[in-house]
Amino acid sequence: MSKAWIDKIRKVTPYVPGDQPKVTNIIKLNTNENPYPPSPRVAEALKNIDTNRLRLYPDPEATELTQALADYYGLGSDQVFVGNGSDEVLALAFLTYFNSDKEILFPNISYSFYPVYGDLYGIKYRKVPLNDNFEINKNDYMVTNGGIIFPNPNAPTSIEAPLEVVEDIVKANRDVVVIIDEAYVDFGAQSAVELINKYDNLVVVHTYSKSRALAGLRLGVALGSKEIISHLKAVKNSFNSYPIDYIAQTLATAAIKDVDYFKEITNKVINTRDYVTTELKKLGFVVPDSKANFLFVTHPQLSAKDLFEFLKENKIFVRYFNSPLIDNHLRITIGTDEEMGELLKFIKTYLEKNLK
Amino acid sequence: MSKAWIDKIRKVTPYVPGDQPKVTNIIKLNTNENPYPPSPRVAEALKNIDTNRLRLYPDPEATELTQALADYYGLGSDQVFVGNGSDEVLALAFLTYFNSDKEILFPNISYSFYPVYGDLYGIKYRKVPLNDNFEINKNDYMVTNGGIIFPNPNAPTSIEAPLEVVEDIVKANRDVVVIIDEAYVDFGAQSAVELINKYDNLVVVHTYSKSRALAGLRLGVALGSKEIISHLKAVKNSFNSYPIDYIAQTLATAAIKDVDYFKEITNKVINTRDYVTTELKKLGFVVPDSKANFLFVTHPQLSAKDLFEFLKENKIFVRYFNSPLIDNHLRITIGTDEEMGELLKFIKTYLEKNLK
Repeated sequence: MSKAWIDKIRKVTPYVPGDQPKVTNIIKLNTNENPYPPSPRVAEALKNIDTNRLRLYPDPEATELTQALADYYGLGSDQVFVGNGSDEVLALAFLTYFNSDKEILFPNISYSFYPVYGDLYGIKYRKVPLNDNFEINKNDYMVTNGGIIFPNPNAPTSIEAPLEVVEDIVKANRDVVVIIDEAYVDFGAQSAVELINKYDNLVVVHTYSKSRALAGLRLGVALGSKEIISHLKAVKNSFNSYPIDYIAQTLATAAIKDVDYFKEITNKVINTRDYVTTELKKLGFVVPDSKANFLFVTHPQLSAKDLFEFLKENKIFVRYFNSPLIDNHLRITIGTDEEMGELLKFIKTYLEKNLK
Repeated sequence: MSKAWIDKIRKVTPYVPGDQPKVTNIIKLNTNENPYPPSPRVAEALKNIDTNRLRLYPDPEATELTQALADYYGLGSDQVFVGNGSDEVLALAFLTYFNSDKEILFPNISYSFYPVYGDLYGIKYRKVPLNDNFEINKNDYMVTNGGIIFPNPNAPTSIEAPLEVVEDIVKANRDVVVIIDEAYVDFGAQSAVELINKYDNLVVVHTYSKSRALAGLRLGVALGSKEIISHLKAVKNSFNSYPIDYIAQTLATAAIKDVDYFKEITNKVINTRDYVTTELKKLGFVVPDSKANFLFVTHPQLSAKDLFEFLKENKIFVRYFNSPLIDNHLRITIGTDEEMGELLKFIKTYLEKNLK
């Protein structure tokens, strides 16, 4: 067969998401999901869904959902963009905002989807090294560039850059778009949302997969000045008019309005995280101060990969990255107290066997 | 405020979808939705949804859904790609398959999203004129090009290109990818799916928004050779790992398996269409032989725009395109018999007043 068409198509190396095993009798601490179910209002809203309504297109503007988000964030509805998970929001943001000939900047240890988006669209990028404590050095971002993006708290490091650092970077780069990817911000970090009305070149991205326990529903959000958001909407409407289906719009709206429940489960995760941090430190692990729903840990006397494999054999899935600089670390999602108790038990067993 | 960032971003003119009015007491014949609800199995499946499951990511491979589709089409599951509506499938297909320096080809009267995708990605394109009967001339597509796409049946013309014409175009263009957008094929046209195992440069796109009555759920499909589909999957996984949420995967799988119901509602739409065609012809309209769930009509003595406005005033929404060559046509979605009876009644009233 002729294969001449192969020369005319785009060939890429895709992002590899964390393992989503089909078995259910595991402790799943590998993709930063919430251990608690979403708000009970989601189940209530589901009961009222009329499937006959599915014959019609959903609201392309997601009006109610957008308004609920605007109310929650204290922004105008024209400052809110919704997408199919924050991955879609980021994909469209790269396409919209990073369109110059200059290279964009992001940390060398960061969300591994960023270089994939760059490669997909042919955007030049440069990975800026973190310091030895996995922190962002703001001066590294005060050079000529085509745009900036970083997660805050950073992933997979779990470390927060103080809001002053974020603001200094945004302020020093008024001639490009700066995206702060706050996927994990609700677990105790300070959000840059409060800077939005001060800097029109700032875009803040949130996900409803983590703190809202809605990974299965797919909702991501971008927040910014009316003007900057309008360009993202135009690109989205050049890609797909209706990325959020009728049921997802309805259920997400119900979830967003339940602020009390959101705070309750978020606090539970934070408390568990702080307890597990203490316990792991007692066992000799190095654990940076996490502001996310996961820990990024290493042990000076252990192979992270071996521990990863041991835990997996015992049906506890955590995340191991076979990448330079972090290939002796594990990223461990915070589960319930029971799940983390099991994790600690297996880690202790492993240490007893492997630390002489 | 500084606005230097504006020079570094992408500025596009987006696709404008048909009006989705928020009022409900209208007869909505403007966006080619199905007048019948989706399969009763969708409501059944909804009852069994456990919203607690939403805390976890959905299956990124959409394994069950993909298998159900593979079974329905008689293809391997590695020949099936699923996306968030056929608009997302087409957007990703443009990005994947149209990546040469040569211009791609599509008809001058066609789905108006195609040039928008082209502009979004900077793909060169040329609009190939249909003949005076709104038909595709296959020889026009037997020239050097970077890829080909056309809807079959075509939209908004409703006219089917015979499968021999499709095959001749695919066969003459083995060095590029040819996409046949079969959004409306289930309403009586012949599908190119049967050519997939013969031509590895062919991609067939289907939507579940029309014949399956699931516009609100967002499901589109691309079918092709294992190899050609694998490249589309790689691009999708460089864009968004989880475009189809857990509930949508579950409900769509239930719908696809209900072939009897699908045939029943499709036949009802076809019967109504053929009746309305006859009636409109009696009233002096020119109505091409539709193989879709809509009609594309003109009347030699009437202004289509004026009729459009008259119907809208009377709460009947049809689609008017203010575009060259078709600006005296209306696209009318096939509704229920009752809805089409109302439409015909108002058209007759209008003709009595406006035809002397």
